[in-house]
Amino acid sequence: MAEATAEQLAATTINDDGIVPKAEFSDRVPINSIISRADGGSGLAGKKARVGGWVKTGRKADKDAFAFLELNDGSCPGNLQVIVEAGLVAGELSQVVPTGTCVVLDGELKLPPEGAKQKVELRAEKVVHVGPVDPAKYPLPKMRLTLEFLRDFVHLRSRTNTISAVARIRNALAYATHTFFNKHGFLYVHTPIITTSDCEGAGEMFQVTTLLSEAERLEKELIHNPPPTEAEVEAARVVVKEKGEIVSQLKSAKASKKEIGAAVDELKKSKDTLSKLEERSKLKPGIPKKDDGNVDYAKDFFARQAFLTVSGQLQVESYACALSSVYTFGPTFRAENSHTSRHLAEFWMVEPELAFAELKDDMNCAEAYVKFLCQWLLDNCLEDMKFMADKFDKGCIDRLKMVASTPFVRVSYTEAVEILEEAVKNGKKFDNEVKWGIDLASEHERYLTEVKFQKPVIVYNYPKDIKAFYMRLNDDSKTVAAMDVLVPKVGELIGGSQREERYDVIVQRIKEMGLPLEPYEWYLDLRRYGTVKHSGFGLGFERMILFATGLENIRDVIPFPRYPGRADL
Amino acid sequence: MAEATAEQLAATTINDDGIVPKAEFSDRVPINSIISRADGGSGLAGKKARVGGWVKTGRKADKDAFAFLELNDGSCPGNLQVIVEAGLVAGELSQVVPTGTCVVLDGELKLPPEGAKQKVELRAEKVVHVGPVDPAKYPLPKMRLTLEFLRDFVHLRSRTNTISAVARIRNALAYATHTFFNKHGFLYVHTPIITTSDCEGAGEMFQVTTLLSEAERLEKELIHNPPPTEAEVEAARVVVKEKGEIVSQLKSAKASKKEIGAAVDELKKSKDTLSKLEERSKLKPGIPKKDDGNVDYAKDFFARQAFLTVSGQLQVESYACALSSVYTFGPTFRAENSHTSRHLAEFWMVEPELAFAELKDDMNCAEAYVKFLCQWLLDNCLEDMKFMADKFDKGCIDRLKMVASTPFVRVSYTEAVEILEEAVKNGKKFDNEVKWGIDLASEHERYLTEVKFQKPVIVYNYPKDIKAFYMRLNDDSKTVAAMDVLVPKVGELIGGSQREERYDVIVQRIKEMGLPLEPYEWYLDLRRYGTVKHSGFGLGFERMILFATGLENIRDVIPFPRYPGRADL
Repeated sequence: MAEATAEQLAATTINDDGIVPKAEFSDRVPINSIISRADGGSGLAGKKARVGGWVKTGRKADKDAFAFLELNDGSCPGNLQVIVEAGLVAGELSQVVPTGTCVVLDGELKLPPEGAKQKVELRAEKVVHVGPVDPAKYPLPKMRLTLEFLRDFVHLRSRTNTISAVARIRNALAYATHTFFNKHGFLYVHTPIITTSDCEGAGEMFQVTTLLSEAERLEKELIHNPPPTEAEVEAARVVVKEKGEIVSQLKSAKASKKEIGAAVDELKKSKDTLSKLEERSKLKPGIPKKDDGNVDYAKDFFARQAFLTVSGQLQVESYACALSSVYTFGPTFRAENSHTSRHLAEFWMVEPELAFAELKDDMNCAEAYVKFLCQWLLDNCLEDMKFMADKFDKGCIDRLKMVASTPFVRVSYTEAVEILEEAVKNGKKFDNEVKWGIDLASEHERYLTEVKFQKPVIVYNYPKDIKAFYMRLNDDSKTVAAMDVLVPKVGELIGGSQREERYDVIVQRIKEMGLPLEPYEWYLDLRRYGTVKHSGFGLGFERMILFATGLENIRDVIPFPRYPGRADL
Repeated sequence: MAEATAEQLAATTINDDGIVPKAEFSDRVPINSIISRADGGSGLAGKKARVGGWVKTGRKADKDAFAFLELNDGSCPGNLQVIVEAGLVAGELSQVVPTGTCVVLDGELKLPPEGAKQKVELRAEKVVHVGPVDPAKYPLPKMRLTLEFLRDFVHLRSRTNTISAVARIRNALAYATHTFFNKHGFLYVHTPIITTSDCEGAGEMFQVTTLLSEAERLEKELIHNPPPTEAEVEAARVVVKEKGEIVSQLKSAKASKKEIGAAVDELKKSKDTLSKLEERSKLKPGIPKKDDGNVDYAKDFFARQAFLTVSGQLQVESYACALSSVYTFGPTFRAENSHTSRHLAEFWMVEPELAFAELKDDMNCAEAYVKFLCQWLLDNCLEDMKFMADKFDKGCIDRLKMVASTPFVRVSYTEAVEILEEAVKNGKKFDNEVKWGIDLASEHERYLTEVKFQKPVIVYNYPKDIKAFYMRLNDDSKTVAAMDVLVPKVGELIGGSQREERYDVIVQRIKEMGLPLEPYEWYLDLRRYGTVKHSGFGLGFERMILFATGLENIRDVIPFPRYPGRADL
């Protein structure tokens, strides 16, 4: 059995000094532990190993005496070249050649012939497993496929070079995020996905409900088992009355305890039957409504209307106002009917929140975080970044280096508008008018970071009228302590602010914006009791991946994209 | 201004050698960097620092000349004792004393009087900020509050010792999870939250929809702006007909181009008006229905019925079958009407999936992961664990040590049933009958791990009839390669299996279970094309926290618990 062979292999070839480490919970050796070494694996020549993976390209050679396979197991972008003798394959050698075939092989690592690209290759000694592919049916043929085409095969597209590189980069950025915040003493807080608060007061939100499925269940049930007619209910009422009269008669006739007891039991049974019938007679198919015709959400699972969160910020603030430095990293949702390359209905956000911190601290944190992410990719994902540079965006590695090493420019909103107005004066054309008070459009943001400064820019102190109620009012009473981090390639990467910690001011701001106070009472409690200066920001995680990889469409940087009309799997 | 003082402080007192490190993005010094040192902070006597936090207990002394405050900032369970002279406080000294008050202070660290519990205390020199509390109104008075009471104040309860300790333990377990899997070469994959697949085929799921809010919006709109009557539509039709006739007449009369053009424009306008009216006349209030009376989900946001995920397993398998070692860690949902202390409607799951791995590898991985989590808490969260041991569960630290160091017992399901039957023979009473074929009840699981073995137990090879279709059929055709990890205190902590990789067998299993094939076609593709042996498991993250802390109610170990009738914030 394979078991024994693997253990022998482990004993004889996988050294304790870790030269060819096994995957920890498998007999195989991950391919990156062979070919991603500094020597490209050449130092392992002579060692034996079990490898497994999927064939990227395969061909037969030497009159079908051998097959050459490029094997990939997802541990790195590179492939291991494997040579398989025809005699090792049960059946046809052509079985192991098609793209997508899974093979597990025991063999010996050898130096390749001189002049070969690879530094090491595996000469198979035993074929342990073949998971075949019928090339006539396989949805991902060997030809180069467009990213758009691959979106119809989200369950298979991770087998492609691009999507697997994105998966490794995404993993690296997520781990870097947790590493950064833990290193700096932030606690990871799981804010709720299902929420009964609305952060922005107006976002288009998905509703979470059991009312529709309940209604459907009930409709089916009522077809099989219709509710009682009024006549049936009335008949049951008559029975109750009769049974009641019998009890009264027996009592006044001073009948035996036993007789009365039996009659009371009968009465009880008939009452039960009646109350069940009455209850069922009230069942109405469809969504439960209140008397005013509105949906009766008291009947919904949470006894009120519930939504998918658009941001964990408000909730995580409650933790910051107790634990000082916290962050959330989770899925957020927008039910916007956007079909652009920059919008998803489900996406991930990183939202740190810092107590005892002003806007300046917030900007420092955002800058340090973005720099850390960039440096992390350079240190831990360079092979994948090289692939992206090669195939999609020549400048992506330089961009990471620049952001990791350049101090971010900081300009106030007012200065930013002056810069843009100056540009217009000098002939620059924007689709959107530039004047103090506008929300900066993407074209303005990209002009600032890509043309004017050619480095990351933090714009701060925005007009209060274009920002949310919770942002801290500045002393000028015209602007709030908000900040956006703009980077080349994607524009706005981060949005944040110092939060309004003054009870009277925030109440005033909520009213000014025409929002009701009641839903925010808990949020106001944070200002009523032990209020503290605090600040935070949000980073759109997929935006960061677009920035890093240079890919154009957000649907390609999340494993299972959700957008209007599509939620595969 | 505070600014200058802080910078002076930083320059003069916060050493480059990190003796009193600042919070990275704030002027304050986190309290744990003072009192959680090996010397309890005594070595810092003479240093100056700015601290901020919330008053746990405060009292005035020396005829109101001083206040003594126990200050906590969430960075650790301990408090820093602070002495504030009356003259430093603008207004009444009693302002800084109430529990919950936020204060920021500059001062000097000093050795306390002999015999004091603390090793260091801060003598305030300046009060930088006070966020007051009116004790008459503060919902969390100084008295000891029950966890049940605190559930009504999820926005404030993180200020209590217990909930903040849980938050630090939860953060540590999450970071340990990412550290463990990254260390072992697993890639973190964000599986979808909104899904159109149902993992278990039957789970009670929340529906995600925009149909209800759309219907409500439309109903309001139709009240303000009712749809046209049939007469209005008919009138518009007549106009179109008339305008059309005018065009025909002008054409046959060979009128001027200009005249005809004007008439054609008129015709076009009337056609536009008609089509708008026709469209509006079709608007019906309520949920859109198909002709058969069922809800028309083609009109929903994703053009089909969508739900909140109950597990990321099936989707993450598609990534394992390309990237080999992957895991997901995210929220999952059950719309079960459970009011127990062990169920939530929203909870977090960790689900690794390993390609080239059999059940044995899966068990090895699960055991290594659980041990790693336990050791991590001992290494990184001992102060919080001591608090839990002190207040809730004397044995919790010993339990972590035992699990971290003891090899898990492994017994087959058949052996487990024999052990339970033997126990029954010897007089042990269970509420649920024991015989081969039953699903083990919690009482059985706890007997095995708490009484029989008194250590963690992995039960494997369960009867196929009580397990999911995707679990690999064993050669006996009666059992599947499933495994559950049982631990003292909570029973089942992990459930996992080797997945059925054989196309014919899994198709047979889906059919046997009466499930439709169509929704699983994508999942079958993973077996059609390059199939691979793979295995995985799921760990309920809140269960792990219950196990670690010894707390009894799952609602106390997640920041914002969701259960029937409740979804605060």
